[in-house]
Amino acid sequence: MLEHQIKNIELSLFANGTERKGEEEAWKVQPSDSAKNCRNFIREIVDNLDLEPNPEKPVIALSIGDPTVYGNLPQADETIKAVVKILEEGSCNGYAPSVGYEDSRRAVAEYLSHDGVEVDKKDVVLCSGCSSSLELCITALACANKKQNILIPRPGFPIYRTLAESIGVAVKYYNLLPEKDWEVDLYHLESQIDQYTAAIVLNNPSNPCGSVFSRKHLSDILELAYRRRIPVIADEIYEQLVFPGKKFASTASLHSQVPILICGGLAKRFLVPGWRLGWIVVHDEINAFQNIRKALVSLSQRTIGSNTLIQGALPAILRNTPQSFHDDLINTLRKHAEIAFEGLKQAKGMSPYMPEGTMYMVVEVQMNRFPKFTNGLDFVQKLMEEESVFLLPGDCFQIPGFMRIVLTVPENLLKEACSRICEFCNRNYV
Amino acid sequence: MLEHQIKNIELSLFANGTERKGEEEAWKVQPSDSAKNCRNFIREIVDNLDLEPNPEKPVIALSIGDPTVYGNLPQADETIKAVVKILEEGSCNGYAPSVGYEDSRRAVAEYLSHDGVEVDKKDVVLCSGCSSSLELCITALACANKKQNILIPRPGFPIYRTLAESIGVAVKYYNLLPEKDWEVDLYHLESQIDQYTAAIVLNNPSNPCGSVFSRKHLSDILELAYRRRIPVIADEIYEQLVFPGKKFASTASLHSQVPILICGGLAKRFLVPGWRLGWIVVHDEINAFQNIRKALVSLSQRTIGSNTLIQGALPAILRNTPQSFHDDLINTLRKHAEIAFEGLKQAKGMSPYMPEGTMYMVVEVQMNRFPKFTNGLDFVQKLMEEESVFLLPGDCFQIPGFMRIVLTVPENLLKEACSRICEFCNRNYV
Ligand SMILES: Cc1ncc(COP(=O)(O)O)c(C=O)c1O
Ligand SMILES: Cc1ncc(COP(=O)(O)O)c(C=O)c1O
Repeated sequence: MLEHQIKNIELSLFANGTERKGEEEAWKVQPSDSAKNCRNFIREIVDNLDLEPNPEKPVIALSIGDPTVYGNLPQADETIKAVVKILEEGSCNGYAPSVGYEDSRRAVAEYLSHDGVEVDKKDVVLCSGCSSSLELCITALACANKKQNILIPRPGFPIYRTLAESIGVAVKYYNLLPEKDWEVDLYHLESQIDQYTAAIVLNNPSNPCGSVFSRKHLSDILELAYRRRIPVIADEIYEQLVFPGKKFASTASLHSQVPILICGGLAKRFLVPGWRLGWIVVHDEINAFQNIRKALVSLSQRTIGSNTLIQGALPAILRNTPQSFHDDLINTLRKHAEIAFEGLKQAKGMSPYMPEGTMYMVVEVQMNRFPKFTNGLDFVQKLMEEESVFLLPGDCFQIPGFMRIVLTVPENLLKEACSRICEFCNRNYV
Repeated sequence: MLEHQIKNIELSLFANGTERKGEEEAWKVQPSDSAKNCRNFIREIVDNLDLEPNPEKPVIALSIGDPTVYGNLPQADETIKAVVKILEEGSCNGYAPSVGYEDSRRAVAEYLSHDGVEVDKKDVVLCSGCSSSLELCITALACANKKQNILIPRPGFPIYRTLAESIGVAVKYYNLLPEKDWEVDLYHLESQIDQYTAAIVLNNPSNPCGSVFSRKHLSDILELAYRRRIPVIADEIYEQLVFPGKKFASTASLHSQVPILICGGLAKRFLVPGWRLGWIVVHDEINAFQNIRKALVSLSQRTIGSNTLIQGALPAILRNTPQSFHDDLINTLRKHAEIAFEGLKQAKGMSPYMPEGTMYMVVEVQMNRFPKFTNGLDFVQKLMEEESVFLLPGDCFQIPGFMRIVLTVPENLLKEACSRICEFCNRNYV
């Protein structure tokens, strides 16, 4: 009450102010270009869909890259206990260095030192999730004032574009080749490089493709980067999430002469995306990144790094999580991939691509055999309307005509979803 | 071994590449302007000091605004247990909405709804620490392309400048008046406003001053902001950390017609700076911030918000932490402030300012009575060298000739530090 009286008095006082513009005059504050250019491309597409499920069928969402949604993939005990222990010890509640505790950085260095790779703790910066790692890397390398651009994969995860454009850095796409297991089209990649290109972003294993590059292919890409003197940002958030028969190779293991910033984190392999623990590893055998190291330290100070409880638990998480946990996860994902692959092969007009890793599968839809649907977005909408199954349209990843399926849902739901998709396709195919 | 052989083969291959520039040619990657302009002003000063303590005396650091350093100020049991519970429940490991869980935002809204303020959960955005809140607010409001600036307090916490300059936004200082309990010099503030001014940053209670604005003074500032139509960013991270006799007033409680972004978080009052839980509250009675709300949501998607364990625990932390915990903390800080104030009054050439809240005290040094020391930095250096006591020079906060003392160290260390400072001053004063 009193507050409102005060307010009214203030208002009448204000009304006498000579410099005051009329009460009615709208005082609309405009956001900065940086905010206006910060777009969520998945949401822009999804929010424009009319997603009304079939009330007779429970919704199955194969859309979100969050393996925790259905509770069928629990974290390792060791992961949870490590954080409880840190809480009980009470030793990790204060500020950490903005790049992270030394012990935690050492643990990441150790964790990533295999297959001939040797990472040192001085090469590691901890961040609030891999998104934040990518943000720091792009911000450090690419300069808006110099009109620089970064090259990003198509299809690919839209965050690179979001981050770059928000700071005024342009993106240019390079193609991945579906007919070559989604390898990079090296000619196209090279043709996209110009004098303003500040970095090439690689994503291996790939979201959404589920592909895993061979050492040979990675070498070829790095050789190109070397020839053209373009540093690389390697998004390796799905490192080790690779099915039997394929082997993950880190860009660091190639020992190329290219300076590389490798981004990763706990989110996917340890099934804790909400914990926001990411890292950057500076891989730089030729000492080209001296100033970039400093830049990353400076930029980390803007927001003072990531949660210290998770940082404190990181050594135990990385060292104590048993191999069997990782193996079980891989086996489940592989099994789900097979279920979806076999299931969707039965769907008329659909060509699933068997993934080699990650938690995703892409499926090509012969849109011309579905004349009822104006495009892939319409297809997704009708699938929801008729079958209550939700997939992300490839448009979210710059490949219209494709769909992305998330493989982490429980097996029975995945089977159910596949059979509903089959019915839907077979019914609507002409 | 094999890896190095591969590397050598690659090198020799590269050596034949026609486009390849000479091996010797340096390939130095230059950081972006954004990285180069991202400066840590405290570190730039401190790193240039020659801080060699007296080996005979253990170091007492009164320099870092981290209340957890000495372990004398433990967190409330409720705070710790709330996070353990969330870990055990296993329900907060996945992605949260980028602005935070709804329940957590509601809890912040409730927590801040008092003294006639009513905050709604839709007004709350959770961030990774108050630093990240400030980053989002400055980035949303101030536009580098339009050559905008923000006004920030002098003396003040240097992060505002770090954040602004890193995104190409200029800062202009407005003065606080030591002789008026560090109130804002309103004439100076107004004189600093120009057509490019995008926001006024207020910090109340103040780091480093320890001052707490009266309702009247806050109203005067907001009236000025209203008259000139400049939105406000209110850094209220020290809200409620106010000593008996003074009362904290949030800018939100004034019910002014100014659109305000209020930044706060758990760091200080709950003694968990490492947890990185901050918030923004959009206070906007005239609906001027419609687009800014959208901008904050967009920007929060860049890094997908803050740690979900702390978010999940937030309702219990904010609701269950007993008043006695807060009272004890205030009483300790107040007692320490009195000890430091009384102690340093005895030091020749020093004029301590009794704080009204926060965990800091500023002290003015009559530098002309210490001709042996070339300036405040030299004073700090010699104090370390002779007495192993480390204070931050006012230069870190844009007030040369002052010092800032952190009051959270254990009582016995604080007393010891004060008596060493006294001896130092009395010995060197002429
Ligand atoms: C390719 C890729 N990079 C980065 C991220 C972001 O990871 P984080 O949750 O650690 O920020 C994701 C998340 O889905 C991703 O798919
Ligand atoms: C005035 C002020 N604002 C903001 C911050 C940053 O708080 P946080 O640790 O939550 O990022 C601090 C930290 O010392 C501070 O003193």
